[in-house]
Amino acid sequence: MSENWFLEKYTPHTGLTFAVKERLYKAQSEFQNIEVLDTFEFGRILLLDGCVMLTDRDEFIYHEMIVHPAMLTHADPRRVLIIGGGDGGSIRETLRHPTLESIHLVEIDKMVIDVSRRFFPALSAGYDDPRVEVFVADGFDHLETHREWYDVIIVDSIDPVGEAAKLFTPEFYAKVKQGLRAGGNFVCQSESPFYNGEVLRQVHGALEPLFNHVHPFLAYIPTYPAGMWSFTFASDEVDPENVSLAWEQDFIPQLKYFTPEIFRASFATPNFVNALLKTPSQPRD
Amino acid sequence: MSENWFLEKYTPHTGLTFAVKERLYKAQSEFQNIEVLDTFEFGRILLLDGCVMLTDRDEFIYHEMIVHPAMLTHADPRRVLIIGGGDGGSIRETLRHPTLESIHLVEIDKMVIDVSRRFFPALSAGYDDPRVEVFVADGFDHLETHREWYDVIIVDSIDPVGEAAKLFTPEFYAKVKQGLRAGGNFVCQSESPFYNGEVLRQVHGALEPLFNHVHPFLAYIPTYPAGMWSFTFASDEVDPENVSLAWEQDFIPQLKYFTPEIFRASFATPNFVNALLKTPSQPRD
Repeated sequence: MSENWFLEKYTPHTGLTFAVKERLYKAQSEFQNIEVLDTFEFGRILLLDGCVMLTDRDEFIYHEMIVHPAMLTHADPRRVLIIGGGDGGSIRETLRHPTLESIHLVEIDKMVIDVSRRFFPALSAGYDDPRVEVFVADGFDHLETHREWYDVIIVDSIDPVGEAAKLFTPEFYAKVKQGLRAGGNFVCQSESPFYNGEVLRQVHGALEPLFNHVHPFLAYIPTYPAGMWSFTFASDEVDPENVSLAWEQDFIPQLKYFTPEIFRASFATPNFVNALLKTPSQPRD
Repeated sequence: MSENWFLEKYTPHTGLTFAVKERLYKAQSEFQNIEVLDTFEFGRILLLDGCVMLTDRDEFIYHEMIVHPAMLTHADPRRVLIIGGGDGGSIRETLRHPTLESIHLVEIDKMVIDVSRRFFPALSAGYDDPRVEVFVADGFDHLETHREWYDVIIVDSIDPVGEAAKLFTPEFYAKVKQGLRAGGNFVCQSESPFYNGEVLRQVHGALEPLFNHVHPFLAYIPTYPAGMWSFTFASDEVDPENVSLAWEQDFIPQLKYFTPEIFRASFATPNFVNALLKTPSQPRD
């Protein structure tokens, strides 16, 4: 075949591969390698350090699921913090919520924002909304100066390597807890339970001492490892497995993945995930 | 790298690839190409015509989910028909049910059975159970001679190409309906809604005129296309979305994927799947 094929290795021995029409962009930022590929199957793809962050075709799943469960279970979400998420997809979904007054987007790598605005204009259109304020900064530092400020905090990060590793530590989650005001909800992406169950277990174990309710939930994301992706929800007020919601927001029927039934279903985890979370975490290196 | 990598293309432009330790078997049967690979990531893998049928590591998900929803929602499942499923995984799961009296396994390709018994001895151990009777035959023909006989019929088939294509037709489903006795449940695998939504739609559309209740359900299967796999449940008696079960069988806590919560969750389908099933099927070629 004459096409170029890109391979993202999920482990040293397996991965997803896809044919590339054209590489649209490649650069090294202060923090990571950033690439934009145009592909036959998935449209445009954003890669950070060789890992698929999003594709045109299935980004809606990740972004709907990292935003709406935490937003819809909050009684009155006005102030939202997104750490990471420079591509703008989580902003787009957060802006759908009518009570929203302010989004702080804290992205350490300005180049991710610039690349997304250039190559993913629809995805990143929310940057033009006056409710959005961008901080090119470290999430850790930002939380030092914003205590008891947010109703919802979303960590839309890359995998726990390099600069992002500290976003998966108990020290960071303590700052998150301080950053929420009463009734606040927290959500983060917590990797694939199939290939990276240890990350999910560590996130869960680190959040449990801090919040009354800590629950993983899942979504089918075809271009992420195993197609099985986890998020972790944490709150003092809201038990997402026993929540009664009116689901009256007008935008819900327009979503492409999320439904009220999907919300409830996403908190059901396979028995091997339940078993993983019941056993103690292995010591970190 | 010195290893050989195998690629299963999910579409002409994407697929899953994995490193192969050793090819243990390769032959052409009357119906298909059969291969067994030993891999670093997934253990042994059975390939039919170059498509992953099962891997040691994640076959439990497919087999638990194709069997237990249909069996557990039946009040008293005694006689079960499995069409396809020559690897024996669906037999293994069906044998867990204490009311079971008889399994008829109808596999058109005897070589699949022989290869599974040789290379997947644990998976295929159920063939030695006296309740299991094997018919090397066409499922269509078998149903002609077994009317109003089964409590549960499971179609554990390959993709709808070649000989298997007729297992996805309205004519075949009419035979299935005839083969069930009162209160019977039917389940089949119905492909990935992400890459092959048209198959799911056709299966759904063909079953709807025949049964009072027809519902797709989903499972995360990391080595199947998109990691998002659909099954379709059909029954006159049982609405799986409104069923009250005691879940008292001793084996349920031993399953690795299935739980009562997963059962309920699996019937929640993303909105793009709901939309797919609401629009009319495209004419088949």
